[in-house]
Amino acid sequence: MIIVIHCKDHIGLVAAISNVLAIHQLNIVSMREHVDVQENRFYVRLQVDQTADEDTLHEELQNVLPAGAMITINPLPHKKIVVLVTKEYHCLADILIRNYFGTLGAAVLCVIGNHDHLGDICNRFDIPFYAVSHEQKTKAEFEQQVINTISNYEPDYIVLAKFMRILSPDFVARFSTKLINIHHSFLPAFIGANPYKQAFERGVKLIGATAHFVTNDLDEGPIIAQQIIPVNHTLTAADMMKAGKEIETSVLAKALRLVFEDRVFVYKNKTVVFE
Amino acid sequence: MIIVIHCKDHIGLVAAISNVLAIHQLNIVSMREHVDVQENRFYVRLQVDQTADEDTLHEELQNVLPAGAMITINPLPHKKIVVLVTKEYHCLADILIRNYFGTLGAAVLCVIGNHDHLGDICNRFDIPFYAVSHEQKTKAEFEQQVINTISNYEPDYIVLAKFMRILSPDFVARFSTKLINIHHSFLPAFIGANPYKQAFERGVKLIGATAHFVTNDLDEGPIIAQQIIPVNHTLTAADMMKAGKEIETSVLAKALRLVFEDRVFVYKNKTVVFE
Amino acid sequence: MIIVIHCKDHIGLVAAISNVLAIHQLNIVSMREHVDVQENRFYVRLQVDQTADEDTLHEELQNVLPAGAMITINPLPHKKIVVLVTKEYHCLADILIRNYFGTLGAAVLCVIGNHDHLGDICNRFDIPFYAVSHEQKTKAEFEQQVINTISNYEPDYIVLAKFMRILSPDFVARFSTKLINIHHSFLPAFIGANPYKQAFERGVKLIGATAHFVTNDLDEGPIIAQQIIPVNHTLTAADMMKAGKEIETSVLAKALRLVFEDRVFVYKNKTVVFE
Amino acid sequence: MIIVIHCKDHIGLVAAISNVLAIHQLNIVSMREHVDVQENRFYVRLQVDQTADEDTLHEELQNVLPAGAMITINPLPHKKIVVLVTKEYHCLADILIRNYFGTLGAAVLCVIGNHDHLGDICNRFDIPFYAVSHEQKTKAEFEQQVINTISNYEPDYIVLAKFMRILSPDFVARFSTKLINIHHSFLPAFIGANPYKQAFERGVKLIGATAHFVTNDLDEGPIIAQQIIPVNHTLTAADMMKAGKEIETSVLAKALRLVFEDRVFVYKNKTVVFE
Repeated sequence: MIIVIHCKDHIGLVAAISNVLAIHQLNIVSMREHVDVQENRFYVRLQVDQTADEDTLHEELQNVLPAGAMITINPLPHKKIVVLVTKEYHCLADILIRNYFGTLGAAVLCVIGNHDHLGDICNRFDIPFYAVSHEQKTKAEFEQQVINTISNYEPDYIVLAKFMRILSPDFVARFSTKLINIHHSFLPAFIGANPYKQAFERGVKLIGATAHFVTNDLDEGPIIAQQIIPVNHTLTAADMMKAGKEIETSVLAKALRLVFEDRVFVYKNKTVVFE
Repeated sequence: MIIVIHCKDHIGLVAAISNVLAIHQLNIVSMREHVDVQENRFYVRLQVDQTADEDTLHEELQNVLPAGAMITINPLPHKKIVVLVTKEYHCLADILIRNYFGTLGAAVLCVIGNHDHLGDICNRFDIPFYAVSHEQKTKAEFEQQVINTISNYEPDYIVLAKFMRILSPDFVARFSTKLINIHHSFLPAFIGANPYKQAFERGVKLIGATAHFVTNDLDEGPIIAQQIIPVNHTLTAADMMKAGKEIETSVLAKALRLVFEDRVFVYKNKTVVFE
Repeated sequence: MIIVIHCKDHIGLVAAISNVLAIHQLNIVSMREHVDVQENRFYVRLQVDQTADEDTLHEELQNVLPAGAMITINPLPHKKIVVLVTKEYHCLADILIRNYFGTLGAAVLCVIGNHDHLGDICNRFDIPFYAVSHEQKTKAEFEQQVINTISNYEPDYIVLAKFMRILSPDFVARFSTKLINIHHSFLPAFIGANPYKQAFERGVKLIGATAHFVTNDLDEGPIIAQQIIPVNHTLTAADMMKAGKEIETSVLAKALRLVFEDRVFVYKNKTVVFE
Repeated sequence: MIIVIHCKDHIGLVAAISNVLAIHQLNIVSMREHVDVQENRFYVRLQVDQTADEDTLHEELQNVLPAGAMITINPLPHKKIVVLVTKEYHCLADILIRNYFGTLGAAVLCVIGNHDHLGDICNRFDIPFYAVSHEQKTKAEFEQQVINTISNYEPDYIVLAKFMRILSPDFVARFSTKLINIHHSFLPAFIGANPYKQAFERGVKLIGATAHFVTNDLDEGPIIAQQIIPVNHTLTAADMMKAGKEIETSVLAKALRLVFEDRVFVYKNKTVVFE
C-alpha cells in the first residue's frame, strides 16, 4: 500500500502520520520525506506492508494534517491518458507498446494528431485516433477542436509525445498540471525551435532531452526528468536528431513512470521526485 | 542535525522516533527509511532543522527502540582514517588533497605502504608515512607489523587505496567493518588478479571499479559503490588500466564520502546506502 | 557510399585502398582504421562522397588486397533477419516498431517463439509468427524444427531477442557469426541462469546487459555492446529484472544498428566496433 | 609514432599521405579521418608502428599536402602550461598531482592566482606561484601584469582552472587558441555568473561542466569536452556547486589529456576530437 502526502510543513507531521499508521498496525517498509524549507512545503511517499480501509485511513490522516493537504492512497493502477502527437512516431510507439502489454502504469484513452501520419499505428493497437488538423484554422479554433475531442474522455494526464504546436496560455491553463511534454533538448539549453540545429552549430559534445510539465511557456514548466547522450563532430544536425529520438523516448518513458507511480510532486516551477 | 538508526524492525518505529523528535520541537526536513523485509532490519537517516542535547536525545531514542539499536547523532565531522597503499598514487593523492583542503570528511592519521614509493607525496602534505615491507617476512609477520603501526592510532576506518596484498582472515576479522577497499573491476566480474588483462582478453565494452567493505574474502565484501566507463578495441590492457585509474579514484572518493557521512549501513553481505 | 574491409594486415594497405578510391575521384569524408597488431588483422570503414560502379570498385580493391579480404560496399539497406523469442516482449516489440517505421536498418522476415505469447503482437504488424514448442521434444528435434522454419527464409542474422533456450553447439555452428543474443547481465558477471537474482544477492550497485554474437557457449561470444543502470537496496530481484528490461531493449537496439550498418567486425572472440 | 594533419580538403589526400608512409615502410596501426564537407577541411590522426626521421617525413608530407597544412609529428611529450586560478583548489590540485607523478602529458611551468589562497599547495609541489591581485587596478593593468608574468615562460597552453575573472578581448586575442577554460555549467545552458544558482532555481535534474577554448567571449569558444551528473530536489545551490566541482575536475582533466595528445582540432567555433 502506497501513501503520498503533500502539504504545508510544520513540526510533528511525520509523528502524526506514522502514529496513524502504527495504530492500524501498518509497518512502513520504505519512506522518502523531504521538506522544502524555503517554501515551507512537506512531501512524503511511503509504502506499508499491509492494507487498511482506504477511506478510514484517508479521513484519519486528513484530521492530523494541515488544511489543504493532498493525500493519495494506493495511486498506482488508476491513471488514464490522452496522447497528442504530430508526425514523429518514437515516443507514441513506446507508449502504445507499454499500454498493450500492461506495463505503462496507465491506460491510453485516445490519440490526437494534428497530422494523420500516426493513425495506422494506433489502429493496429485498437486505440482511437483523431486527426485534428491545424491547417486553415485559427489557433483558437484548432485548440477548441482538440479540447472537444479530449472532453469525450476524462484523462488524468495529457501527454505531448512530440506534439509540435505551441499551445496557447488558455489551453495550458485549462489542463493545468495535467500536461506532460517531451522537449528535444537539455533545457534550459536550446529553448525553442530546432534545438538539434542549434546544438550542431554550437558544437556541443552532449545532447539531451527533457520531460516536463507544461505551464505557461511551452519549454518552461517544472522539469520531471532529463537525460543526455554523447555526440561528436561526425554527427550532422540530422544525425543528432536521430540519436536524440532514442533519448527522448527513454526520458519520456521514465517521466511517465515516475508520474504514474505518484513519485512526482509539483510546487511552483519545480518538482520533487522520489525515485 | 543528522540522526542515523539501524535496528531490528517492528511496527511503529517511525512513529516512536518521530514522536521523540516532535517533543523536542525538531522538524524533520529530510528522511530516508528502508525496511529489509527478508532480514527484518530497519534503517533510517534523517536530518532535523534545529539542535537538541545529543545525550538526552540518544537516551530517549534508545528507550523507544529495540535492544541493540545502533544510534548515531551528528556523525559528520569525526572520522579518522589510516590509508594502506602499495605503489599506485591515484587514490591516495586524491585522499591527501581532500584531506589537505578539509573536504574529505575525515582526517588522515597516517599512511602505511608495503613499498616506499608514496612516502614523498605524504611528506609533502605532512602526513606520517610508514614503509612496512612485506619482503622476507611471513604474511603473519608482515600483518603484525602493520597492526602494530595502526595501533598507535585509533582509526575509524582503514582505507585500502590500491593496497595490493591479500589480507589474512585474522587481519580482516580484527578490523571487521572498518576496512574499505577499492577493487579495480566491476565486481563480481573479474574477481582476483589482473582484472584489466582479463577484461581485455574478454573484449568487454565497459570496465568498472568497485568500492566495498572487506570481510573474509578480499573481493567479496558488501559493495558500497560501483562505476563504469566505456572502452573499445583501440585500448590495450595497459590503456584499460590507465583509464580504470580514473574511475577507481572517483568511485573510492564517492564511497568514502558516503561512509563518512554515515549514509552506508552494512548488514550481512549487503549495504543500504541513502545517497 | 560506405566501404568496409577486413583482411590480414601488411604495410601499405591504406595507400593501396586510397589510391583506388582517388583514381575514381572518390573523396574520403570519414574513415576509421584499426590494426590488431597481436593478431595481424586490418580493419577499415570509410565513407566517400560520390558513387562509383560497385562491381568495378570491388574488383579493383580485391586486386590490391590480400587473399581472403572481406570487402563490403554500400552495406546499409540490405539486411534480413529472423527473430527468436520466448515470452518477454520488450526487445521484440522494439524491433517490430523500428521495422514498421523503416528505421531498423533491416527487414524482419519472421518471428519464431517457443511459446505462443508473442504471436498477437506479430500479427498486428503483419509479421509471420511461428510457435515452435520445445515441449515433449528432444533438444535436437526442437532445434531441427526451428531450423526448418528458418530455412524457408534467407536471413542475414538471427536475433535471439530474449530467447530463453540454450542452443546446442550444432545449432550455433550452423548459423555461425549470424546469431546475435541479448544477455541480461553485464558479462562476464553473472553468467548463466537468473542473473538478476544473482545480482540482488550480491548487492551490486549497477546492473547491465550485453549484446553479443553467439559462438559455442551461449554467454561467451564476442561482445558487441554493453550498458548499465544504477540500482540500490530498494530494488528486489523482480524490480531489477524490470529495470533491466529497459537496458536490454536499449543495448540490443544499439548492437543491431551497429551490426546492420556494418560497423562491427568479428575476429576470434572479440569485436572491432567503429561507432 | 603519431602523425596529425589538418588542412584544406581535396580528393586524394589519404592516398597522398599513406603513400608517403608506405614508402618509409611505416604501417598505420590506427587512423581516424574526418572531412568537414561544409567547411572543406580535412583532419587526420594516425599512429604508425615504426619510426622514421621526423624532418624528412615532415618535408615529404608537406610536399603532397595543400599550402598551409598543419602537420604535427610525435606531439605527445612536449607540452608546457601556465595555470591561472582564483580560490578554488579542485582543478589545480588535480593538475599538480598529475604533473608531479608524470601523468599530465605536460609540464606545469607556473601558477598565477588573482588571490593568494593556492600559493601553499603550489609550494608543496615546488611549482612557482605568482599572486597577481586584480584589486585597485584597471582590468588593463591587471592583465598586463599577468601577461608580464606569463612572458617569463613559453607556455603552449594557458589553463584557466577556475579563474574567475573575465578576460578582455585583447588578452584573449594575444593567446588565441592557447587558452583552455573550465566552465561550471553544461554550455550553452546557464552562460554567465553563478550557474549553479541558476540551475537550482530552474530545478534541473542534471548539472554539467564544459571545457572549451576561449575565443572572444568567455563562455563561447569551441567546446572540447562536456560531462554531467544527476541532481535532485534534495540539493541546495551550494550542494550543486560542491557536486559540480567533481565533474569540473574530471572534464578538465579529460580535455587537457585530449589536447595534450593532439587529439583536438579547432576550426572556427568548433572542435574535431579524435578520442
